Amino acid sequence: MFSRSQILVAEFLGTALLLATVVGSGIMAERLADGNVAIALLGNTIPTGAILVVLITMFGPISGAHFNPAVTLAMFLNGDLKRIDGVPYVLAQIAGGIFGVWCAHMMFAEPFFQLSQKPRFGAGQWFAEFVATFGLVLVIFLVVKFKRDAIAMAVGLYITAAYWFTASTSFANPAVTIARGFSDSFAGIVPSSILPFILAQLFGAVAAWGVFRFLSAE
Amino acid sequence: MFSRSQILVAEFLGTALLLATVVGSGIMAERLADGNVAIALLGNTIPTGAILVVLITMFGPISGAHFNPAVTLAMFLNGDLKRIDGVPYVLAQIAGGIFGVWCAHMMFAEPFFQLSQKPRFGAGQWFAEFVATFGLVLVIFLVVKFKRDAIAMAVGLYITAAYWFTASTSFANPAVTIARGFSDSFAGIVPSSILPFILAQLFGAVAAWGVFRFLSAE
Amino acid sequence: MFSRSQILVAEFLGTALLLATVVGSGIMAERLADGNVAIALLGNTIPTGAILVVLITMFGPISGAHFNPAVTLAMFLNGDLKRIDGVPYVLAQIAGGIFGVWCAHMMFAEPFFQLSQKPRFGAGQWFAEFVATFGLVLVIFLVVKFKRDAIAMAVGLYITAAYWFTASTSFANPAVTIARGFSDSFAGIVPSSILPFILAQLFGAVAAWGVFRFLSAE
Amino acid sequence: MFSRSQILVAEFLGTALLLATVVGSGIMAERLADGNVAIALLGNTIPTGAILVVLITMFGPISGAHFNPAVTLAMFLNGDLKRIDGVPYVLAQIAGGIFGVWCAHMMFAEPFFQLSQKPRFGAGQWFAEFVATFGLVLVIFLVVKFKRDAIAMAVGLYITAAYWFTASTSFANPAVTIARGFSDSFAGIVPSSILPFILAQLFGAVAAWGVFRFLSAE
Repeated sequence: MFSRSQILVAEFLGTALLLATVVGSGIMAERLADGNVAIALLGNTIPTGAILVVLITMFGPISGAHFNPAVTLAMFLNGDLKRIDGVPYVLAQIAGGIFGVWCAHMMFAEPFFQLSQKPRFGAGQWFAEFVATFGLVLVIFLVVKFKRDAIAMAVGLYITAAYWFTASTSFANPAVTIARGFSDSFAGIVPSSILPFILAQLFGAVAAWGVFRFLSAE
Repeated sequence: MFSRSQILVAEFLGTALLLATVVGSGIMAERLADGNVAIALLGNTIPTGAILVVLITMFGPISGAHFNPAVTLAMFLNGDLKRIDGVPYVLAQIAGGIFGVWCAHMMFAEPFFQLSQKPRFGAGQWFAEFVATFGLVLVIFLVVKFKRDAIAMAVGLYITAAYWFTASTSFANPAVTIARGFSDSFAGIVPSSILPFILAQLFGAVAAWGVFRFLSAE
Repeated sequence: MFSRSQILVAEFLGTALLLATVVGSGIMAERLADGNVAIALLGNTIPTGAILVVLITMFGPISGAHFNPAVTLAMFLNGDLKRIDGVPYVLAQIAGGIFGVWCAHMMFAEPFFQLSQKPRFGAGQWFAEFVATFGLVLVIFLVVKFKRDAIAMAVGLYITAAYWFTASTSFANPAVTIARGFSDSFAGIVPSSILPFILAQLFGAVAAWGVFRFLSAE
Repeated sequence: MFSRSQILVAEFLGTALLLATVVGSGIMAERLADGNVAIALLGNTIPTGAILVVLITMFGPISGAHFNPAVTLAMFLNGDLKRIDGVPYVLAQIAGGIFGVWCAHMMFAEPFFQLSQKPRFGAGQWFAEFVATFGLVLVIFLVVKFKRDAIAMAVGLYITAAYWFTASTSFANPAVTIARGFSDSFAGIVPSSILPFILAQLFGAVAAWGVFRFLSAE
């Protein structure tokens, strides 16, 4: 069994590496893509999907590899959060996410502290975050139940798709949303756009839990 | 065992998420690609292949994860459709597909109801749909028989390839074809082009079943 | 056990689908890429790697899924060709390859019969084909010996890499080389360039067999 | 059990094929990408990630598939280097790496012997190499401990991500760094930039070993 501090360090490190990838590859892609946003988004999507498979494979056995308060909430609703309380999980995720963003800025020799100025607002964006998180949480519940060994690959491929099929490029994660507020780059989100994103994500997570209960009832 | 309503909801949701991905990533890719159609097709291909792996992994244990009337027909011919009739399967697939297209339009703040104006017509296109569906159904029969665990990955990778090697970008699915008639976007098909596509797909499915019977006969 | 005709049909169909993908995606990529050859090569690479994983998974249990006379030769040298003679294998591969090229031409409404005019000549190209085939055959021998379940993925990923790291874009297959002589498209090779390519490939296969014997000797 | 010479040949060949891919695909990508560096980096990333999965799958059972002195150092610190000394391992890796670079030059008809003129210097670059190697070594330790079968895929996907999320495109390997000094191409590094890269990599490897010990302590 893993200790409380091992579990929280795993959540912190995993979320930090996830955000370093999301923001770092966003900066790299934007710098190199010469204004072609589709190529920049490919250069942001492929690394993010790839690192998710890796992070869930390596940290899953220690902490469950949530890296996402919406997932932690859904696990709590479903009674799967036994080893540790949800609140320190979520705090470790948020702290790790912000730390990861700062690591990305340091690697790319950007100013350490930034606030995004990129608005992400409107009903389409919010519906997109609802759909993105609904899909993510439903994937997690069903794959963990029916084919647990495929969970890392399933989540990585889901986010690979969701970056493109949702109008918001699929944040689908409150910790990621908060952390991306601290980066004025390709991947950023202006702080005033954060709260409605998080609300849409939490609604999506709860809806997915309801659908899962229906689909898995005996 | 899953109930009839659980099975039909799985087919509905899976086909909806498939079409939301096909149409949503098509809209995203076209908007961002700045007129370079090869990059747009990459941005449409990668998400579609990825989501298919995910959807078959998550819904396969519930409904078999057909999401495709041509697959349901082939399964029926082969005597594999035991738990439920084919007609409600197909209806759930078509309804789910159209619902998914509408979700994509809502996420991207496009008009809810659209009809495609994009013609897809001619012997080359129809032969392409025959080949695409022949290949898809043969993949499904052989992989389910010889290496069942690889079916989700096999179908996702097959469609990834078929988007590029067929002149029609491989619809290979009557429910997908009908649903894409309702989107005047990158992924659309004008309603008058739909019927010959579906006929070519059904011929391809039946031909694949015949070849499978030859290859698997003892 | 599979019959002789089932085995040969599997080799024919598999090589046909492989060549339909190589040539079909080459035509699609060249038409859409608007002169950017790197994007065209991506649109040729991703489908080819993907379909190889699928074809080896589906036809492997029937025929061994060689689709490649250089592989058949290496298997013969290693004493692994027991169920059937090498010559009909190779004939089925060549016939399937040409048939696949013709299917691609029909799908894309191109003239049925073509001869490539694209020269691929010179010491760098031949050394590239030697390296490409050496690597491919070594991958096959070692992975089949140590981790048989991973063979389809290993070959697909190897060719994905080899399209880019070899100066010839890695034909690595005499049947593929002959068949691509019949297509005056992105993927073609002028007939006069074919023979040295095949010689380099056969040398590579034999060298790989020698290295494999050294590495696996007890 | 494999002999000492079999193990060293596996490390030599594996590192040679890795560098042939890194440098070869870099030359191919730069030649074709028409000045769009993001597309060139995609054409360098996808082959490198793919070949790593293949090389670790094929050579892992023989030599452990390090191909990387930083990995060999971390294994030594952790007491996992039992079959052979570290020094010949590292020498085989460096020699293989340089040989692989020369093979790439020969395939692309470039001058055999080159020295890079591309500076890669500064605190951001060095921190990037620290992060890249820290992540790589932590991935290896945790995945080998908890899900050994996934190690080839995990390393390939990690490097796929790290090419984009680190400002240095993630060398993360002293043998690779030295070998890339011998290529004046897209993937090169001027010799005077090599030493600080290697120091940052070794610090990253040691730090990862420390974190692994904390996370895996009982």
